[in-house]
Amino acid sequence: MPTPVTFSAPNDSYGIPVVEQANALRHQIRKGDFNLPTSGFAPGLVQGNIVILSKTWADDFLLFCQKNPVACPLLHVSLPGEPLMTPLGDDIDIRSDIPEYKIFRHGEFSQSMNDITSIWQNDFVTFVLGCSFSFEDALTKAGLTMRNIEEQVNVSMYKTTIPAHPSSHFHGNLVVSMRPFKPVDAIRAVQITTRLPKSHGAPIHLGDPSLIGIDDITKPDFGDSVTINSDEIPVFWACGVTPQLAIENAKPEIAITHAPGKMLVTDIANDHISLM
Amino acid sequence: MPTPVTFSAPNDSYGIPVVEQANALRHQIRKGDFNLPTSGFAPGLVQGNIVILSKTWADDFLLFCQKNPVACPLLHVSLPGEPLMTPLGDDIDIRSDIPEYKIFRHGEFSQSMNDITSIWQNDFVTFVLGCSFSFEDALTKAGLTMRNIEEQVNVSMYKTTIPAHPSSHFHGNLVVSMRPFKPVDAIRAVQITTRLPKSHGAPIHLGDPSLIGIDDITKPDFGDSVTINSDEIPVFWACGVTPQLAIENAKPEIAITHAPGKMLVTDIANDHISLM
Repeated sequence: MPTPVTFSAPNDSYGIPVVEQANALRHQIRKGDFNLPTSGFAPGLVQGNIVILSKTWADDFLLFCQKNPVACPLLHVSLPGEPLMTPLGDDIDIRSDIPEYKIFRHGEFSQSMNDITSIWQNDFVTFVLGCSFSFEDALTKAGLTMRNIEEQVNVSMYKTTIPAHPSSHFHGNLVVSMRPFKPVDAIRAVQITTRLPKSHGAPIHLGDPSLIGIDDITKPDFGDSVTINSDEIPVFWACGVTPQLAIENAKPEIAITHAPGKMLVTDIANDHISLM
Repeated sequence: MPTPVTFSAPNDSYGIPVVEQANALRHQIRKGDFNLPTSGFAPGLVQGNIVILSKTWADDFLLFCQKNPVACPLLHVSLPGEPLMTPLGDDIDIRSDIPEYKIFRHGEFSQSMNDITSIWQNDFVTFVLGCSFSFEDALTKAGLTMRNIEEQVNVSMYKTTIPAHPSSHFHGNLVVSMRPFKPVDAIRAVQITTRLPKSHGAPIHLGDPSLIGIDDITKPDFGDSVTINSDEIPVFWACGVTPQLAIENAKPEIAITHAPGKMLVTDIANDHISLM
């Protein structure tokens, strides 16, 4: 795992190092002054999906990630009780640096929180999983347009009938995110995302949604619906929401995730995610 | 351009070096004892599309290939009048070592020949272009099944409405070959063929055939029709038949190509085509 300081992190268009923006954003979040989706903030830096479990459940979940690396690409796993995510950036405190947390008790959503310091346990293990923002950055640099960005909505996400590989109590079907592309851009998207295994890698399906159990493409299970033009095909990537379904099935006493779209902002440059 | 002898060419299942099979096959062809499609012979070795033009026309055609590298990936261009294809293998005489030649005069098909020694000109330049057999080999090794191989027919080829980049008198639309795959295999095929630019590289289209001007997928312009199952999508690669349309349009006094499927068998291992 590389340390963030060795990366020449990008500057923004004003020449301000983006890692300083990331740090400033995390401090704003920590103070409770920011509760928006993090998409578009600290551009060019990796953002992560979060799963926090007690050590009793963490080992099975680690194996679940190992068995499902496309849906659950591991960027970091903390030691039990360790709140600082040092390998991912300067002074990241996982108890306070996410805009909104979702608390699940016995597999059911229980409440949202903006700071989990009050319920922190010294056996909590934090998993940080890569997310699609990194490959969207790469696709944008290659000249492709993401419809969800164009229409300024959340990406469309769907439950599928493709089973994840189970690990003990953790099991369930894959969740996918969908972006429509012209076929030639879909091919280009396969090429580009293949190089980014820590950001869900290549698509797992394209074309007919019904083949993976999606009956109505206009009705996503998570996120928003986007326009699909007649000369486009839907392209489906495994999604970091997959663990939430597995947690619902495993029913651990407590599990904490980020709220969809409100991610952990790290100091790692997207261009370096292939090194992780 | 590597010399063939530096390659550790594969042995067949009987342990006979495949280059010896290639050499033996070329000698059989040279004697007029073999006039079949070459698919499946000397397995694991590169086979090539052939275009022969007089020097007057060759420079424009060379530029046509440079401008259309996906349809026309150059493996070798001879000196004018040079009949031996030394960089591609031991003792390859392009005047006699193709099972069947097609002679075009002023852009129109004139006749088939099994040996062109009698019409050879000392200003003839030979172009050897990579063909899809190399990527089919790679796809097979990856566990994918090609329907044309399964149904023991020629691959389906179609004229498209995608224009090739013109070079002087050489112009026309791209010809594509089509193989149906389940979407997950189509994605894998994109990944694998991307690595093989000298064998037409990645697909140029997938899904709806009408978007590239193919009105009836069951009626290929060249080759045979294959079954497309309901859970499959057609995947389209640029095809080495493209130059034949450009020659029809350019109308050179004389042009010689191989007959479809009856290719030049070289001594180069498919595994080394990415080095060419």
